[in-house]
Amino acid sequence: MKWEVLGTEYLFRRPWLTARRDHVRLPNGVENPEYYVLEYPDWVNIIARTEDGRFVFVRQYRHALGETRYELVAGVIDPGDASPLEAAKRELYEETGYGGGEWQAFATFSPNASAMNNTSHTFLATGVRKVSEQHLEPTEDITVHLFTADEVLNMLREGEIRQALMAAPLWRYFAENKE
Amino acid sequence: MKWEVLGTEYLFRRPWLTARRDHVRLPNGVENPEYYVLEYPDWVNIIARTEDGRFVFVRQYRHALGETRYELVAGVIDPGDASPLEAAKRELYEETGYGGGEWQAFATFSPNASAMNNTSHTFLATGVRKVSEQHLEPTEDITVHLFTADEVLNMLREGEIRQALMAAPLWRYFAENKE
Repeated sequence: MKWEVLGTEYLFRRPWLTARRDHVRLPNGVENPEYYVLEYPDWVNIIARTEDGRFVFVRQYRHALGETRYELVAGVIDPGDASPLEAAKRELYEETGYGGGEWQAFATFSPNASAMNNTSHTFLATGVRKVSEQHLEPTEDITVHLFTADEVLNMLREGEIRQALMAAPLWRYFAENKE
Repeated sequence: MKWEVLGTEYLFRRPWLTARRDHVRLPNGVENPEYYVLEYPDWVNIIARTEDGRFVFVRQYRHALGETRYELVAGVIDPGDASPLEAAKRELYEETGYGGGEWQAFATFSPNASAMNNTSHTFLATGVRKVSEQHLEPTEDITVHLFTADEVLNMLREGEIRQALMAAPLWRYFAENKE
């Protein structure tokens, strides 16, 4: 049963941070006047494999954690994207210059179901190839790297793939696809 | 290379929401005066199996997403916890009344490396047993459920395990442990 929302106040609305405070009442009658929700657009990320079977990764600095690691290509679904799939194709093209191939929806996860209202959609793209240079924003500092399946599995085992939204679909991929 | 922080301002500091704005400079010289970071304590969750091999799950409503689903036991590392392991044992005991068994560190993931500064530690506990009733807070409405390995795998495949911080270690567990 859903909690009842007795009131909502927006604390902050900026392009990269929208925070609200809900006054909620639980089914047991207990009230919490201070429940914080962070609103985000949905996200996408991509498990992309080249025509010769290598996985397309990027490497970038993540300021909140203070770490630079290998990651799946990922991004925000923009208002101009016709669908999550189109957002995923756009992000792969912009961040890596890769395109083409066969695409399918693979998994959907929540980053934080208690405090964030969005989900992240993972797509699986096979047979992609380099069709362009990267098209980066000035605030993006992203390099492209190709890895074999064994190399990706090793990074997963070592904890190099730090972000749960990327590790979850990758571990699923390797649980279901033996190579 | 890390970004340079030219200034920091705290926007909000409450027990469940701490937000700051950093003015950062990237290695390429580009400045972003408005980079938001959410500060959280580290979290824990637990893959717990009973003496007869069943997995201990909980079910609860998550207000930000507006969904009620099956989840791993999870919680925040409190200042009073001697270690992440002790926090995990405390959470399992409080939320389910299960304890005992053999415990080991299993994986560490980030919920959102760009905007959140914390990580989540997963522990694997085998041979746990019911030693108590639940000890819930008034704002917790949590029920306990036991599942076989096949049932957990089916929930993973169907997307019932929505939270990436739980799906990532569970998919890893099944990728590495065939039953």
